[in-house]
Amino acid sequence: MNDLPIFQSPICPLPLAHHAQVTIGHGSGGQLTHQLISDVFQKHFNHPALTQGNDGALIDLASQTAQQKLVVSTDAHIVTPLFFAGGDIGRLAVCGTVNDVAMMGADPKYLTVSFVIEEGFPIDQLEQIALSMSSACAEAGISIVAADTKVTEKGKADGLFISTTGFGLLPAGRLIAGDQARPGDAVIVTGSLGNHTIAIAEARGNLGFQSGVESDTAPLNHLTSALLAEIDDVHVLRDPTRGGLATTLVEITRQSGVTIELDEASIPIDQPVWAACSMLGLDPLYLANEGKAIVILPEAKASKAIEVLKTNPYGRNAAVIGRVVNVEKARLLLKTPFGTTRVLDMLAGEMLPRIC
Amino acid sequence: MNDLPIFQSPICPLPLAHHAQVTIGHGSGGQLTHQLISDVFQKHFNHPALTQGNDGALIDLASQTAQQKLVVSTDAHIVTPLFFAGGDIGRLAVCGTVNDVAMMGADPKYLTVSFVIEEGFPIDQLEQIALSMSSACAEAGISIVAADTKVTEKGKADGLFISTTGFGLLPAGRLIAGDQARPGDAVIVTGSLGNHTIAIAEARGNLGFQSGVESDTAPLNHLTSALLAEIDDVHVLRDPTRGGLATTLVEITRQSGVTIELDEASIPIDQPVWAACSMLGLDPLYLANEGKAIVILPEAKASKAIEVLKTNPYGRNAAVIGRVVNVEKARLLLKTPFGTTRVLDMLAGEMLPRIC
Repeated sequence: MNDLPIFQSPICPLPLAHHAQVTIGHGSGGQLTHQLISDVFQKHFNHPALTQGNDGALIDLASQTAQQKLVVSTDAHIVTPLFFAGGDIGRLAVCGTVNDVAMMGADPKYLTVSFVIEEGFPIDQLEQIALSMSSACAEAGISIVAADTKVTEKGKADGLFISTTGFGLLPAGRLIAGDQARPGDAVIVTGSLGNHTIAIAEARGNLGFQSGVESDTAPLNHLTSALLAEIDDVHVLRDPTRGGLATTLVEITRQSGVTIELDEASIPIDQPVWAACSMLGLDPLYLANEGKAIVILPEAKASKAIEVLKTNPYGRNAAVIGRVVNVEKARLLLKTPFGTTRVLDMLAGEMLPRIC
Repeated sequence: MNDLPIFQSPICPLPLAHHAQVTIGHGSGGQLTHQLISDVFQKHFNHPALTQGNDGALIDLASQTAQQKLVVSTDAHIVTPLFFAGGDIGRLAVCGTVNDVAMMGADPKYLTVSFVIEEGFPIDQLEQIALSMSSACAEAGISIVAADTKVTEKGKADGLFISTTGFGLLPAGRLIAGDQARPGDAVIVTGSLGNHTIAIAEARGNLGFQSGVESDTAPLNHLTSALLAEIDDVHVLRDPTRGGLATTLVEITRQSGVTIELDEASIPIDQPVWAACSMLGLDPLYLANEGKAIVILPEAKASKAIEVLKTNPYGRNAAVIGRVVNVEKARLLLKTPFGTTRVLDMLAGEMLPRIC
């Protein structure tokens, strides 16, 4: 063939280092997209299923699934700002989806990621976020197996959005779900509430003072697997993200058709979070958390559960905060330190948008 | 409990019909989010794994996976405009991911979806898109098993972005991938090229005349499964989306380390697409397609493959367009009707951004 007249394509992209920002061409599917993928993403995400460059990832489940079920969960992440005390959108996107899979009682194994990037986004920030995702994956023990990148014109997105989908395996016979809460169960939360929301509010300059509060963004799968290894009759696991503890528990009361009674005084909330909530007029029971789980299980197992949770750094402030009671109507009740009882409903409206 | 002082939360959201637009509160994770999900999405997406309202979807693979592998693919969709001749972002998001799973030789079964919605987006358009997704899923024979919705402030996104992740099962022993092209193989395309891009250009008012071209957006899984049922040694399947036929084939030449020689005259392109390309100065070999596949398989099977493909409406214009040849350098060559040969490279830069 080599003696035929051949005209080489004259356009050759500059090395990525010469592009300080993402350009529209980085979303073309052509040379610049390949360069962005190889220079930024493949440097940090290197599972063979991803780097083979096919349309999909191939995962061998045959040896694992004889007695297991697949658990899948998906989330879009649009948090602003992208960087905040205790995390960034990358760590948040990995942990948010890892936790959703873990809350089903499953063992998260694989993640897919899609990026929507606004033209002009700094390449160094993109790489910082990719590195943060890679670290969070390593901590959780999972792999990114498929990814996609799209670029919008300037002004048509807000820096970066990340959607993640997580996969994991659930052992046969394990049933953990929002409709499994039963009268006689204890309600546990694995740590202090509201830190993520306050860290975001501070990163936006909404506080007006330095609270020292860091986001709790963390992968909880090792915490839940340690718990499930010790206690085989956990009824519900759920992470109180958007809408907070109260909204999540209202969902559970409705799914299970039970009433849950919380003891306000026993709910762990860090002092700086209380202070910030008072100043901003926020109710910590409705603040989003990104590294906390609600655990509902038979009351007889509660003290063992607390003991196991406290051995993990992400569970060191775990506490029993209430119980499932035997009444007809599905409601969430809060017993205050003053002896009164409030009915809590789901979050109405929005306290702080784009928290995750 | 009923004799205790109980104060009902006074805020109750209006029925969704009273909201003509998506508001920031619809992304709160609270009452409005629940209303949007139940009134818009659950009406059209009703797989039990989704409607149970847990953090993840539970899928029983045990009976299916003894001899199979899981295939996973993900895509963000940011096409503009959201509606165009032949489709919309919803149909595109479903088909794009279904096709990526099908191109691995797998049978797509399940889909997860995450929405990023700009505040102010019309609810009726959202429902129209949800309905379109539901129809495309029905056509492909797949189910949406997990979903997520986020809302940005007005001006921080462009109407609606949709990320989808698809998964399916690959029979044991089937190996279809970009690195499997071999000298002696024929290269087939399942239909005419460029229709999607021209339909998008027209919907943007870029043509200045009515071309009558419709997007080819379609799920190709039934087409590929019919092909694979008849021919067991297909080497490569790939859908030429962003970057078009040329970019996709360059990827394959690099993955397989082979040269591919195309006969320009045999590449099917509809006359109105040619006309539009001439006017706009676009090369149809680089235009995105959303309902076409490249098939590479031993030359001896090519006529049987064309026969099978033509029995499906999405394969009626299938044609052999080239061959894999035995030369040392991995290149994509185009033999023109004038007897010359051009080397084709990947798309450099971007012809038309946000095509998918």
